[in-house]
Amino acid sequence: MEPRLDLLTVAVPDLDVARRFYVDGLGWTPALDVPGEVLFVQVNAGLLLALFGAADLAADMGVPAGDVVVGGGFTLAHNVDGPDEVRRVVAAAEAAGARVVKPPQPAAFGGFHAYLTDPSGIRWEVAHNPGWRVDADGTVHIAAVEA
Amino acid sequence: MEPRLDLLTVAVPDLDVARRFYVDGLGWTPALDVPGEVLFVQVNAGLLLALFGAADLAADMGVPAGDVVVGGGFTLAHNVDGPDEVRRVVAAAEAAGARVVKPPQPAAFGGFHAYLTDPSGIRWEVAHNPGWRVDADGTVHIAAVEA
Repeated sequence: MEPRLDLLTVAVPDLDVARRFYVDGLGWTPALDVPGEVLFVQVNAGLLLALFGAADLAADMGVPAGDVVVGGGFTLAHNVDGPDEVRRVVAAAEAAGARVVKPPQPAAFGGFHAYLTDPSGIRWEVAHNPGWRVDADGTVHIAAVEA
Repeated sequence: MEPRLDLLTVAVPDLDVARRFYVDGLGWTPALDVPGEVLFVQVNAGLLLALFGAADLAADMGVPAGDVVVGGGFTLAHNVDGPDEVRRVVAAAEAAGARVVKPPQPAAFGGFHAYLTDPSGIRWEVAHNPGWRVDADGTVHIAAVEA
């Protein structure tokens, strides 16, 4: 099994609420939108984010609905070029309906970040990481922070 | 806020258990490994997966530890070229310590898939989707399934 993520599916309580935030609020263009079923958005090269009803995801996996806890144990990180850009993106997301969980501030990894929760309960980190670099071929370099 | 995911952080109960599965079991090469803190693996162009202790993630977000439910409401999907490849990858992951949640079978989206849970509780879908295509520039095309 190669180290490759092609699609990240996240459970949401209500697909219409998710669409209003990402498509109407943030202006993201769906790669495919099947109302009442699933909404796909491209979020990096070769990568789609799928917003999918929590009950539908449980059914697709064949697990009890209670096993799908929206938000749960993950965060999606969106990197930007500096602290001012962190503040600007957080303000834009908040204007579109996100809630600020952790206001913009210096981060333990040596940069600057904030955490948001979208209207579905999905958490986003908006971060500036001075130790992060992406080559033209997509290779990511991340530096360890001095202790 | 642009539609871009740079880093996906998933909470795990024990980073050493996660490392044994992904690094020792599947043979994935870390982009950065800070034992006891975090393990990063590149999983697509411009994209890192971060395995992070659940308590550490809660602390970083500034939320109660109980808000971070490992596994939770998401699945990571790994696409392959056909049903036989789904079966082969599932067998390899199982040999490395994953548990099969849904055995390889035809999928509602018109392809073929299976679901696994890794030893940390993270769910992976291994899928063949005939309607999925990625251009050389990383643009993903996904076709709607006929109802």
